[in-house]
Amino acid sequence: MSFFATHEELLDRAQRAIAERVYWSAYPESPSPKVWGETAAPDGKAAFEALLGHDFPLSGSGERVAPEKSPFGIDLGVRYATTPAAELIANASAALPAWREAGVQTRTGVGLEILDRLKGRVFELANAVHATTGQPFVMAFQAGGPHALDRALEAIAYAYVEMTRHPRTATWEKLSRSSSRQGETTREAFTKSFHVVPRGIALVIGCNTFPTWNSWPGLFASLVTGNPVIVKPHPGAVLPLAITVQIAREVLAEAGLPEDVVQLAVDTREAPIASELALDPAVKIIDFTGSTAYGEWLEANARQAQVYTEKAGVNTVIVDSTDDFAGMCRNLAFSLTLYSGQMCTTPQNLLIPAGGIPTEAGPKSFDEVVAGVKSAVEAITADPAKAVELTGAVVNDAVLERIDAARSLGEVVLDSRALDHPAYAGATVRTPMIVSVKDGYQTECFGPVAFAIATDSTEDSLTIFRKTVGEKGAITAAVYSTSEAVLDEVERAAQEVGVHLSENLTGGVFVNQSAAFSDFHASGANPAANASLTDGAYVASRFRIVQSRRPVPAAPAA
Amino acid sequence: MSFFATHEELLDRAQRAIAERVYWSAYPESPSPKVWGETAAPDGKAAFEALLGHDFPLSGSGERVAPEKSPFGIDLGVRYATTPAAELIANASAALPAWREAGVQTRTGVGLEILDRLKGRVFELANAVHATTGQPFVMAFQAGGPHALDRALEAIAYAYVEMTRHPRTATWEKLSRSSSRQGETTREAFTKSFHVVPRGIALVIGCNTFPTWNSWPGLFASLVTGNPVIVKPHPGAVLPLAITVQIAREVLAEAGLPEDVVQLAVDTREAPIASELALDPAVKIIDFTGSTAYGEWLEANARQAQVYTEKAGVNTVIVDSTDDFAGMCRNLAFSLTLYSGQMCTTPQNLLIPAGGIPTEAGPKSFDEVVAGVKSAVEAITADPAKAVELTGAVVNDAVLERIDAARSLGEVVLDSRALDHPAYAGATVRTPMIVSVKDGYQTECFGPVAFAIATDSTEDSLTIFRKTVGEKGAITAAVYSTSEAVLDEVERAAQEVGVHLSENLTGGVFVNQSAAFSDFHASGANPAANASLTDGAYVASRFRIVQSRRPVPAAPAA
Repeated sequence: MSFFATHEELLDRAQRAIAERVYWSAYPESPSPKVWGETAAPDGKAAFEALLGHDFPLSGSGERVAPEKSPFGIDLGVRYATTPAAELIANASAALPAWREAGVQTRTGVGLEILDRLKGRVFELANAVHATTGQPFVMAFQAGGPHALDRALEAIAYAYVEMTRHPRTATWEKLSRSSSRQGETTREAFTKSFHVVPRGIALVIGCNTFPTWNSWPGLFASLVTGNPVIVKPHPGAVLPLAITVQIAREVLAEAGLPEDVVQLAVDTREAPIASELALDPAVKIIDFTGSTAYGEWLEANARQAQVYTEKAGVNTVIVDSTDDFAGMCRNLAFSLTLYSGQMCTTPQNLLIPAGGIPTEAGPKSFDEVVAGVKSAVEAITADPAKAVELTGAVVNDAVLERIDAARSLGEVVLDSRALDHPAYAGATVRTPMIVSVKDGYQTECFGPVAFAIATDSTEDSLTIFRKTVGEKGAITAAVYSTSEAVLDEVERAAQEVGVHLSENLTGGVFVNQSAAFSDFHASGANPAANASLTDGAYVASRFRIVQSRRPVPAAPAA
Repeated sequence: MSFFATHEELLDRAQRAIAERVYWSAYPESPSPKVWGETAAPDGKAAFEALLGHDFPLSGSGERVAPEKSPFGIDLGVRYATTPAAELIANASAALPAWREAGVQTRTGVGLEILDRLKGRVFELANAVHATTGQPFVMAFQAGGPHALDRALEAIAYAYVEMTRHPRTATWEKLSRSSSRQGETTREAFTKSFHVVPRGIALVIGCNTFPTWNSWPGLFASLVTGNPVIVKPHPGAVLPLAITVQIAREVLAEAGLPEDVVQLAVDTREAPIASELALDPAVKIIDFTGSTAYGEWLEANARQAQVYTEKAGVNTVIVDSTDDFAGMCRNLAFSLTLYSGQMCTTPQNLLIPAGGIPTEAGPKSFDEVVAGVKSAVEAITADPAKAVELTGAVVNDAVLERIDAARSLGEVVLDSRALDHPAYAGATVRTPMIVSVKDGYQTECFGPVAFAIATDSTEDSLTIFRKTVGEKGAITAAVYSTSEAVLDEVERAAQEVGVHLSENLTGGVFVNQSAAFSDFHASGANPAANASLTDGAYVASRFRIVQSRRPVPAAPAA
């Protein structure tokens, strides 16, 4: 049975999901042994540990490097082969024709089979994501495994729909009454073939914090649309993508296709390779997640390529009123604490009227609202052993520097605390801080820093929201209000500045989280990102249709 | 009945057509009175003539200008109001919110109603296209009227499919077994709303040769996706787009929407306005048809916008063999002669083996093949009265200069002749020339100039084809061969360099023509154009989806 036939039912189901956008998930998010089997977790951990301190089993023509440094202080020491950029490009170019000729179904089948094998190594991947990013383990499992697989499947489903919206061939027949020859009917008939052709070579530039979740959608969208992909991980989080590439090459080889359709490009902080790859004329698609500065550099300079970027933004919460004050505070506290605020979706600016807000327990002053969030953060971070399972570890020193710098921006309502990690002596752990500020909140402060901003009114909050998100962008926005009118108004403002909006989250859904097949992640409609995971625009420009028309011989006379 | 309801059946039919890609057309292409009524043609001509020498009935805050000069020498003298760029932008920005809020169906209905009224003025438009472009009348009617309407409807259908592929709202409900509270099931439910939001202001920059056919697809695609559109015609062909804008504003006003959703930006060769508009930060979409130099300038400089360009290319014909030598020569001759080669789809390079080709009448030498095409051109251009109904008139002096320059590039096999136009004493008419060259054919020579190039073999022809089309692009390519293997090989090469291919055209279908709803025009896969009329990629990035999620209140306990 072909890979495509094996996974066709899943693909059909995913196609339905992206059209319906109700709850659906293809990969179980619980790491429970009841779901994955008793040995899955220990086997995955053992497989991960077996990689440490060794040469990763992917070859390359350059020297081996071990650029990763775990935020938990785990001694990784995985040595990856490097390959010069020109050689990667040459390999990808050589692999392109066979990959194009393989056709839509074969390529889609290969993509789906890779996902299936990634699923089979999901605990190994979870350990790799955990160790390289500093994510707490359950989050590394969920976001790095099932949720990332869902997003990848979603991208494949969109790409498949787009590639198959036109028939592969059509018979075009036109009968016309000849104007020159009285009454005579002329017939023109053609067989038209519509070929899906790739743009060229695709480059995926991974980030340190979400190496699989943020890289897989672009990787698989480019791949199944016919573009050989060069995967360039962040030097801090190579392993999850090295495993990905290893699996991809295994599947390609089994399918009798060139392994170089997917290649790993490892570099180091000292000798980066991304820009050389990005500027190569053969590179026609780039997916990037990371800093605004580098994203904008790519957009400005990699002009030969279709560039998809997710950059920084100023995520904003408008607090107007609530009928569940405790729920609001708990929900916000969780959002601020999760992975120490190192998510592109973590709220940063809390816009609260200086005069306070109405709640189910009567009016709360600005200070009481901020104190409510503060207490909720304190409650979930009080026990270090439990806290670290939310915060994880700090991914790099720049985050620590931003925490320090934030102290001078205003009144520190809640300071960030360093916690000892019970399992990892070398981990750098920080709890969220809340600073009440009048200024300095207008750009992204990546890390566990939230700003409480006293506004004149909810109208004023909306003005600030429109201005900061309009100018700097945002991946997420949230509002708390008991007024339908206010919710509607914020919804309109969110459309204006192009940001997705979560309303009155008080339970177990958080603004940081987007559900594949239902929620769009980033909109492409504000400066924080120029694309969305996943919509038609995300896949449609990754390939082109090239057509031929060949005459159908005239039918023999009756 | 709403505009949408009025035209919904047509829209449904068009949606089916773009998915099936068999023959279909919504607007009759014959100018016959049997189709349009006895008075349609004279009424349209009278309406056109009534505009000449007058102020066009669209207001503006600047001076009036009359920049058009008819290639037929028709005295146009239509005076158009100008408006400063900043004012056009301000008007469009002010119109945007209402147009966005109008929603997908209302906007689509407005677009379809505009098409219907354009159809009602199709003979007036045909006269306007004829007079401003130099197209012969029947071509001006067909390409400027029904075929352009078909292309516009096609763009609306694609945009509508893309905007409605996701539901407007969905209920998302997730039940999970709580891990902390034994056995307890938690429910999270949200109503999710998916809003289609525009990119911003759209700018359409028209060309002199096909003011409606090349402008309408982008105009209507941007319009129905929510973007106010500024239409900037070529100063040589304002009238067809002025009529378009006039109708659009009429329909908008009737729908109670801001007329400034569609505005006309008239300029002159001496005081061009396109670049100022293109660089405005509020302009987020640009559609351009014209020179490579200006197209590349837009791509490089209008970086805030999604830029769709159709530029120059080197259209190529590979002649390998034929079983209908006369049909091949006739078909090529027609393609070279139509509108004096002033189509972006006109063949330029004829690649013919120096050793000749096999035909049904035995081998033909290179010289005999070229002579066959030459004779066929001579046959259809012998009678000036008939010839001018194919050639039309020369659109500007640069075409004449290129004809002169081409003479020195090689051996002139057939020289271009000046013809007197029986109806227009002031017309500049030129028949096609054929020059046998060894070099100088690698860039576009826009106008009635074809190059015959002797190649070592069909393999060599393919090498030249790959190189010239790969480097300079092409909108069309054609091949003549009796060998399936050769056809397949050329088809593969066409996929490699990303150009649409017509095979063995010997009858009444010509390489210059693409049929809406079936043929894609340009591919976006080679340097001649970065987009295709029309595919998913052409519409998907003209809008974004912005989502909101609002909790569904818990159902009362049973």
